[in-house]
Amino acid sequence: MKSEYSNILIYGLGLMGASLSLALKKKGIATRVTGVVSSSKSKAKGETLGSADEILTSEEFHSAKRWEDYDFIIFGVPVDLTVKLIAQLPLDYSGVITDLGSTKNQIIHAVEDRFSGPHNYVSSHPMCGSEESGLEFANASLYEGRLCILTSPDGARAEVRSSLDTFWKRIGMETIEIPADKHDSILSYLSHSPHILSSIMADWAANQKIVKRYTDISPIPLNGGGFRDMTRIAGSNPKMWAAIFSSNQEEIYKSLLDYRDRLDIILEKLNPKNTLNPKEWEGFMETSRRSRDYILKNQDDSKKH
Amino acid sequence: MKSEYSNILIYGLGLMGASLSLALKKKGIATRVTGVVSSSKSKAKGETLGSADEILTSEEFHSAKRWEDYDFIIFGVPVDLTVKLIAQLPLDYSGVITDLGSTKNQIIHAVEDRFSGPHNYVSSHPMCGSEESGLEFANASLYEGRLCILTSPDGARAEVRSSLDTFWKRIGMETIEIPADKHDSILSYLSHSPHILSSIMADWAANQKIVKRYTDISPIPLNGGGFRDMTRIAGSNPKMWAAIFSSNQEEIYKSLLDYRDRLDIILEKLNPKNTLNPKEWEGFMETSRRSRDYILKNQDDSKKH
Repeated sequence: MKSEYSNILIYGLGLMGASLSLALKKKGIATRVTGVVSSSKSKAKGETLGSADEILTSEEFHSAKRWEDYDFIIFGVPVDLTVKLIAQLPLDYSGVITDLGSTKNQIIHAVEDRFSGPHNYVSSHPMCGSEESGLEFANASLYEGRLCILTSPDGARAEVRSSLDTFWKRIGMETIEIPADKHDSILSYLSHSPHILSSIMADWAANQKIVKRYTDISPIPLNGGGFRDMTRIAGSNPKMWAAIFSSNQEEIYKSLLDYRDRLDIILEKLNPKNTLNPKEWEGFMETSRRSRDYILKNQDDSKKH
Repeated sequence: MKSEYSNILIYGLGLMGASLSLALKKKGIATRVTGVVSSSKSKAKGETLGSADEILTSEEFHSAKRWEDYDFIIFGVPVDLTVKLIAQLPLDYSGVITDLGSTKNQIIHAVEDRFSGPHNYVSSHPMCGSEESGLEFANASLYEGRLCILTSPDGARAEVRSSLDTFWKRIGMETIEIPADKHDSILSYLSHSPHILSSIMADWAANQKIVKRYTDISPIPLNGGGFRDMTRIAGSNPKMWAAIFSSNQEEIYKSLLDYRDRLDIILEKLNPKNTLNPKEWEGFMETSRRSRDYILKNQDDSKKH
């Protein structure tokens, strides 16, 4: 399997797809990139911005083009739509196929349902989203230095897997293989449920009468940097996230139950009938710092406190 | 009441106190700043860094100095220690007194207990913390453009209040007056409880077997920017935060109960026995974005989606 492509299709030219298109140019990888967008408004925007060599609306694509016109297909649309498109893929497609989906179980099942024999589909999850959405926020460095999780369905040809690995590394990413069920469990903790907790937080604060009254009269916002950071992802790309929540409902549910149990333990300690033990709370904060450093692999930061 | 001071005492030269000292110099406000630190190790560090004109350990201060040696006293220590120091203040002190405390009920009660007649104490809360702590992270611009909440106890002289208002504005801050109980309720939502939710999140993720297994083998961290941002404040300055939790236990408890109720509503919707309605989740994300924009007074951002 070659690792050079002459005709790449990015089906879904949102923030992720358009940034990938720009990165391909920057790295000098593809000779030609075709992007598919949902509306003629996006097409016009993409053409003005030079988001791809050719831009088609999905209507134009489906009436005039075939999947076989491209030697590398990358789906950059929400998971639910990706699943629908997988069902249309030609069974004997000879190029490479992947997606940029944030959940994997549904995608992998759709691929395994579609292809009973060997096939060329390996799923990708480049961990480089943003609270922005739309091709106007695209940037050629979005993928640089980030992690790309690869998930291979049953029947995926080994050379496709290794070709994709090479591809993402040329884009500037590190890679790791994680099976679909484990991917979706990990991501519920590190991304999906934090999004929900962030969104709850924004509403929770904004619906407090006293917070509103003083926000209205204050010359500048009442919040500090902590609240701003914790709610940064609240309300990111509603369509994409609604599809993520639907396609990973069980894992998100389980992880949030776990979060609620931990919150309940803290609530019991905070119950005003109890006197707080400052040492215990210092310990709680120190453990949390170490936990964060562990997840973020912050060897240096962990010595700071 | 003058708004120039010739001899300022910053009792507690941590991140906030030392940054204020540097800001005073930068703005050319004080002729002399004395800083009090807890240990001789911090004293040596502060002297090397030029954190104040004179640096004393608390032991040195209490054996050799009197409060009356200064015309402006600023407490930059955790709330529990501030409360203890207030009980030692001379009843006829003629300078201005304030603090940088993150909770107000206990401080205001301590002031009102100490002074039965008119006095010169008005409490301040400059909203410019950081997840860093210690004078080595001080910077002269920390207060610039941020909000300072002023809280006046019963008996505070009006000219002290207006002198402090002038002072913080010269440091580069905007000001607003908020009574102690309302301050502590607002801050439980915008700062204290978010700190706890952030700390819970770090532990919650780091204690997942599958997250750990793949974190250990991944070449770079598995998390994206959302998790990093949401846990940035996890484990900030354990001593200071333990004092904040103790001194605002009831409000934090109430706000976290409210958060848990909101989480329970979301959990019920996510229960795998229910089918998610994507439109409802899009609405949830959109409302959250508007809530965040409201709190952050993001007039421009609110039009983005």
